Amino acid sequence: MSNFMNKIEHIGIAVKSLDLSIPLFEKLLGSKCYKIEIIKDQHVKTAFFKIGDSKIELLESINNQGPIENFITKNGEGIHHIAFQVSDVDEALKQTKELGFRLIDNTSRIGADGLRIGFLNPRSTNSVLIELCSNEK
Amino acid sequence: MSNFMNKIEHIGIAVKSLDLSIPLFEKLLGSKCYKIEIIKDQHVKTAFFKIGDSKIELLESINNQGPIENFITKNGEGIHHIAFQVSDVDEALKQTKELGFRLIDNTSRIGADGLRIGFLNPRSTNSVLIELCSNEK
Repeated sequence: MSNFMNKIEHIGIAVKSLDLSIPLFEKLLGSKCYKIEIIKDQHVKTAFFKIGDSKIELLESINNQGPIENFITKNGEGIHHIAFQVSDVDEALKQTKELGFRLIDNTSRIGADGLRIGFLNPRSTNSVLIELCSNEK
Repeated sequence: MSNFMNKIEHIGIAVKSLDLSIPLFEKLLGSKCYKIEIIKDQHVKTAFFKIGDSKIELLESINNQGPIENFITKNGEGIHHIAFQVSDVDEALKQTKELGFRLIDNTSRIGADGLRIGFLNPRSTNSVLIELCSNEK
């Protein structure tokens, strides 16, 4: 069995307000937010913190559309997804599909923090929303 | 600012059936479950997988009591908590409280996989249930 998930790349957390949550997580983690980035096609503003070999990504909706707005309306704030680092996200999406998992993204797209990303469908992963990431080639 | 969270020690995922979810996560992660452990006072059976410098912990309730049974009744399966590794969990709980966070555990207790653990109250952390862990002294 090949270990094709290299590590936890980040944990995504849905928040209502980055202005409130960035200082909260800086205090909690003892780690400064190192980047704020808007991803227009996902309707989110993100804030990143380094922790060990992984990151925490806070996600705030920038309008009343998109996945984070939907998540917060349904569930409130909280953990939104886990992202695993793989060597090649397109190859990993293909391999994951061949293993019987359902995909949200059949091919990769550009995500935050300079990564290529693709999501699996949580219906096939115990309701855990899983993102695969690899560095841009 | 001292970085007192060293790394993501594990992500805890609530599942209805380890018998179903262990093979699913072995296939997904490409990593064999390396330990199954019952934590009686938490009313759970846990299964661990290594991934990079962190772990995934699946949690199944062993009866109709306890936090995982409550979580699944309310939310269904899914991500339950994030655990951060600290050097000394009792010291970190004290420091976290002094920073204004609310605690579930004022002092550490024995957790799964040979760790000392303590939980923060998610009401003070954007509804994210956070566990602090350190190795047994």
